[in-house]
Amino acid sequence: MNTLPDIEKDFAQWYQDIIYQAELVDQAPVRGCFIIRPYGWAMWENMQQYMDARIKATGHQNASFPLFIPQSFIAKEAKHVEGFSPELAVVTHAGGKQLEEPLVVRPTSETIIHDSFSRWVRSWRDLPLKLNQWCNVVRWEKRPRAFLRTTEFFWQEGHTVHETLQEAETEVQLMLNEYVSFIQGQLSIPVFVGEKSASERFAGAERTYAVEGIMPDGRALQMCTSHLLSQSFAHAFNIKFQNREGEQAYPYLTSWGITTRVVGATIMTHGDQKGLVLPPAIAPIQVVVVAIFKNDEEYQAVANELDFIQSNLADWRVFSDLDRQKTPGAKFYHWELRGVPVRLEIGPRDAKARQVVLVNRFTGQKTTVPFDQITQVVAAEIKNIQDGLYKKAQERLERLVIVGQKLTEFGPQLEERGVACVTGWCQSPECEQALAPYKASTRVLLDTQKVTHCFNCSKPSPRDVLIARSY
Amino acid sequence: MNTLPDIEKDFAQWYQDIIYQAELVDQAPVRGCFIIRPYGWAMWENMQQYMDARIKATGHQNASFPLFIPQSFIAKEAKHVEGFSPELAVVTHAGGKQLEEPLVVRPTSETIIHDSFSRWVRSWRDLPLKLNQWCNVVRWEKRPRAFLRTTEFFWQEGHTVHETLQEAETEVQLMLNEYVSFIQGQLSIPVFVGEKSASERFAGAERTYAVEGIMPDGRALQMCTSHLLSQSFAHAFNIKFQNREGEQAYPYLTSWGITTRVVGATIMTHGDQKGLVLPPAIAPIQVVVVAIFKNDEEYQAVANELDFIQSNLADWRVFSDLDRQKTPGAKFYHWELRGVPVRLEIGPRDAKARQVVLVNRFTGQKTTVPFDQITQVVAAEIKNIQDGLYKKAQERLERLVIVGQKLTEFGPQLEERGVACVTGWCQSPECEQALAPYKASTRVLLDTQKVTHCFNCSKPSPRDVLIARSY
Repeated sequence: MNTLPDIEKDFAQWYQDIIYQAELVDQAPVRGCFIIRPYGWAMWENMQQYMDARIKATGHQNASFPLFIPQSFIAKEAKHVEGFSPELAVVTHAGGKQLEEPLVVRPTSETIIHDSFSRWVRSWRDLPLKLNQWCNVVRWEKRPRAFLRTTEFFWQEGHTVHETLQEAETEVQLMLNEYVSFIQGQLSIPVFVGEKSASERFAGAERTYAVEGIMPDGRALQMCTSHLLSQSFAHAFNIKFQNREGEQAYPYLTSWGITTRVVGATIMTHGDQKGLVLPPAIAPIQVVVVAIFKNDEEYQAVANELDFIQSNLADWRVFSDLDRQKTPGAKFYHWELRGVPVRLEIGPRDAKARQVVLVNRFTGQKTTVPFDQITQVVAAEIKNIQDGLYKKAQERLERLVIVGQKLTEFGPQLEERGVACVTGWCQSPECEQALAPYKASTRVLLDTQKVTHCFNCSKPSPRDVLIARSY
Repeated sequence: MNTLPDIEKDFAQWYQDIIYQAELVDQAPVRGCFIIRPYGWAMWENMQQYMDARIKATGHQNASFPLFIPQSFIAKEAKHVEGFSPELAVVTHAGGKQLEEPLVVRPTSETIIHDSFSRWVRSWRDLPLKLNQWCNVVRWEKRPRAFLRTTEFFWQEGHTVHETLQEAETEVQLMLNEYVSFIQGQLSIPVFVGEKSASERFAGAERTYAVEGIMPDGRALQMCTSHLLSQSFAHAFNIKFQNREGEQAYPYLTSWGITTRVVGATIMTHGDQKGLVLPPAIAPIQVVVVAIFKNDEEYQAVANELDFIQSNLADWRVFSDLDRQKTPGAKFYHWELRGVPVRLEIGPRDAKARQVVLVNRFTGQKTTVPFDQITQVVAAEIKNIQDGLYKKAQERLERLVIVGQKLTEFGPQLEERGVACVTGWCQSPECEQALAPYKASTRVLLDTQKVTHCFNCSKPSPRDVLIARSY
């Protein structure tokens, strides 16, 4: 058994170690790429399943667009090509020959999807058009970290077309709100939500909204974005429709996505010194039943009760650990490291007394539970853990986010104390650039006005901004 | 409304037209790639959902391995590199620089997965190791056809490691049987199953088993494969484990996959002159309720009943067509083209009489169904269509597959009559090559011995072989 680094003193190393020890990922032979192992992939599958249902319930349909995009497509929207060029992977040879036009491995699919939209959209009757795809994308990553920054990553990207700016804005907010309820409700992560500054905007968007979590080291992690692309891409890809007045018009576009980064956010937000602590909603195993026995007779006595216990746990993802090689202690360690929310222990004496010992991974509390109360007690514990994780993370977030007036005062604290800061900002790019020496940036504009003057120039600030170092 | 080409006289053109008219695919700006539109993608999602559950139920776990494979990996298994080299797409530039080692976009993932296996497998206690991934793969395609041959396609690839040859063989057969029950049960397609000849084997495998359908034009379509890789890849990637005797040994590997080709097979097997006919199990919409009305009053009378009807159809994927622009005739055409198994029509008089008119897409039969019998009648129709499609396809298959003695006799018939042939074969590569002038090949070896002598050399034949032109 390897010991995890001190989570308080060396959070970065703790993360680096837990992702391998809990068998979430392995290194790949290609720089910047990672192998996602079954336990890590199952977390993502649970997240996908929830979000996919929500995406469909809000009137979107899934489709699939090609992995490869002609290089000339990327170049069509001026800011888009400028933003993505340094990160592209390019296929130059295929089928044994050099290609006439190199193909870009998609870093995002606006260009190839908008090309299709230009053929599919003819009339206002074709609108709104609301598509989504789950896929892999590639952005060449110089400083890779598993889940957080990887050359290949996984996401959904939604792409929609609307008659009016108002409808497009409504769509952008709709999906932003879906993301927030997913992240808060399923991942138990408290967040900041708001618009990005011009310099942090998606390449080619008119407005970008984002959801940001604050990790235990005070750094912000952008978990998803929702973009009002407006008409720039419609012009670039010549998407036109006949409007209700019979005139040719350019529609308003949006795009929005959430990535495998949220797996990293979940690990960092809830983990403790013993390892992962997973929100039940997305835990691959929600309840582990650990059989405790010394010999064949005891094994049999315990094993005989497992069917009954499992039949009382039909609503949850359950795994029964009947391993005959490992000691009970090794099993406890194994499942605590992997963050299984509820552990039920049953030994021969428990079997006889028709009870189990329940251990809550989040609180560490042990409770003896009679067989006939297992269903209701487990249901209550699962709910308590889901809610408790959020509450604990919310309390930490409140400690980690300070309100600051002047950059010269709060700037040094960002790294020294590991905090983020809510402050005022005149919204000029010049003042934003003053954050660079502190390795910090504006994360999102907020609806509050706790501070009335800019952190840098002291001019009036119309609204607060979240400032942090970021992942 | 476009008319479909005559399905009897020009099947190839019928396929080419139906996939666009039913909005299953669209052309992509990259040669060999296709856009899969929502209706086509929903078919694949339904297929995935079923197979994913079966893959998990048979003890496999999903994981994710990188899209990119170092070129040197592909070269490690001699036959593998020989087989795949002409089809590879290669990334030579990334992040603005030329790469030191080019990266291949995975054509299949044996090499990169086996590299991981060499690190994960240490002892017989780590075995069996049974992984799967759902992903996109790329094989440069010179003569692309949507779903059937595309440069990028979608599949699951299972990869397993076993202690003994026997266990590996059991795994190969287990998944082959899963595929057969999926294809027969969910897609209603009758099949031939068997081993491939040496020349048709997966590059690097000891044995390849395949499931082949016979399309209405008599051509065979390989729908999936299950490979006994045996120890060749274990040697190439140095996968060793300590066996139960304490010795270092090479394990036995398998791989198996099913692709988006099965969408094409489903379209071709069941389609008719009116368009698609979809097996209910994978139909994106199983029941369409078409409202018929002439004015607002009638619209309201019909619309008032839809909630009630839908509440009786909660077990199925239902869509209610309340479009106010289209005529009923246009709606019927639209949903027939898309192959929705069951159509319920309801007009104002039906609403008053509390009944619907049910139209079976497969048989064309119309039935009047009182509201209180909707659930049971729809259930019966759905089952009848699923079974009827299989029966009809089975009957056609029996007509399309002739038993032949001599290649000189049955060879010309393969193209002229559009048939496939069961015959005898001495199993020599020389006789297999005699099929080339007829554009035919051996598809699978069969367990029967209807013909006792080779189709070419007349030497004894131990077992029959299926011979056909193929997709």
